[in-house]
Amino acid sequence: MVADLREKTGAGLLDCKKALGESNGNVDEAITILRKKGAASAAKKADRATKEGLIESYIHVGGKVGVLIEVNCETDFVARNEDFRAFVKDLCLQIAAASPQYVSRDEVPESELQKERDIAAAQVQGKPPAAVQKIVEGKLDKYYSTVCLLDQPFVKLPEKTVKELLTDQIAKIGENLQVRRFIRYQIGQ
Amino acid sequence: MVADLREKTGAGLLDCKKALGESNGNVDEAITILRKKGAASAAKKADRATKEGLIESYIHVGGKVGVLIEVNCETDFVARNEDFRAFVKDLCLQIAAASPQYVSRDEVPESELQKERDIAAAQVQGKPPAAVQKIVEGKLDKYYSTVCLLDQPFVKLPEKTVKELLTDQIAKIGENLQVRRFIRYQIGQ
Repeated sequence: MVADLREKTGAGLLDCKKALGESNGNVDEAITILRKKGAASAAKKADRATKEGLIESYIHVGGKVGVLIEVNCETDFVARNEDFRAFVKDLCLQIAAASPQYVSRDEVPESELQKERDIAAAQVQGKPPAAVQKIVEGKLDKYYSTVCLLDQPFVKLPEKTVKELLTDQIAKIGENLQVRRFIRYQIGQ
Repeated sequence: MVADLREKTGAGLLDCKKALGESNGNVDEAITILRKKGAASAAKKADRATKEGLIESYIHVGGKVGVLIEVNCETDFVARNEDFRAFVKDLCLQIAAASPQYVSRDEVPESELQKERDIAAAQVQGKPPAAVQKIVEGKLDKYYSTVCLLDQPFVKLPEKTVKELLTDQIAKIGENLQVRRFIRYQIGQ
């Protein structure tokens, strides 16, 4: 905890120990204590990389759509690998073209999911109850394949999902790969 | 409102009018109503550009740091202007190098500001009260110039702030320009 605080504040060992004592081990409070004493510099942030990976961008011709993505891997060796880089570029194109909102299903907020379930259930009113659940699940899958990057059909090869493409890359490269985050900007949106 | 709803859902004029009636003019609710009826396609989003501008990115050598930015202007003519494009590129470099967290002062959350004020006040304890306010204000200015893009000294010409650079560009180009948003990714951060 002391080492973590030192890394976050740049303050000395003794100052950090004392601040943690005063804050009863609360790191955020200890940072505030150190800053009040002037022992930590303002707005200093820990920015040590904890994982390897690649940040890549894509700007569509004309500059009206842009994408930024972070894909993590285990070693810097892989981060510099040409196959890996090409894969990350493909993901950028995918996001630019297909506008996903989330990386994976577990990022979809429960409230959104409930709304989709309600809409799907309303659409199938009157159908036999046995069929309803199946239809609703089908509609949810369709929703996921619209908003989740990993569930989308890969634009360059629509018979595969992006998740299948990722699995292929993991097998090929021999390292765990993870799409950590992405963002898509569009002018005026 | 009907036109807005049509744009957002792709549904027909009459369906939109009826849905707005049912929702008492609440557009979000009207969208849900239309989707339940199947008149609006799932996850369809309005993506008509309402402003002109440019989206630009910068990836630092090695792909460990990346920036995406949207800068708005009034006409597409300016968005294609070389000076404007060079200015937007400079902003990307600024963000990569100086890691601002906000575009401008008004984006800093009040809670953050209060924390900075408390810290500054604690640091100047014991000083004459007349001096305290001035010192605290000075420290806040310092804080803003660390975390707000527009308050930062421009890395390529530190005697100017980014805001001054922006003002120069507005005068030179003859259109209002606005940094709408940006994001900075760093591996593992």
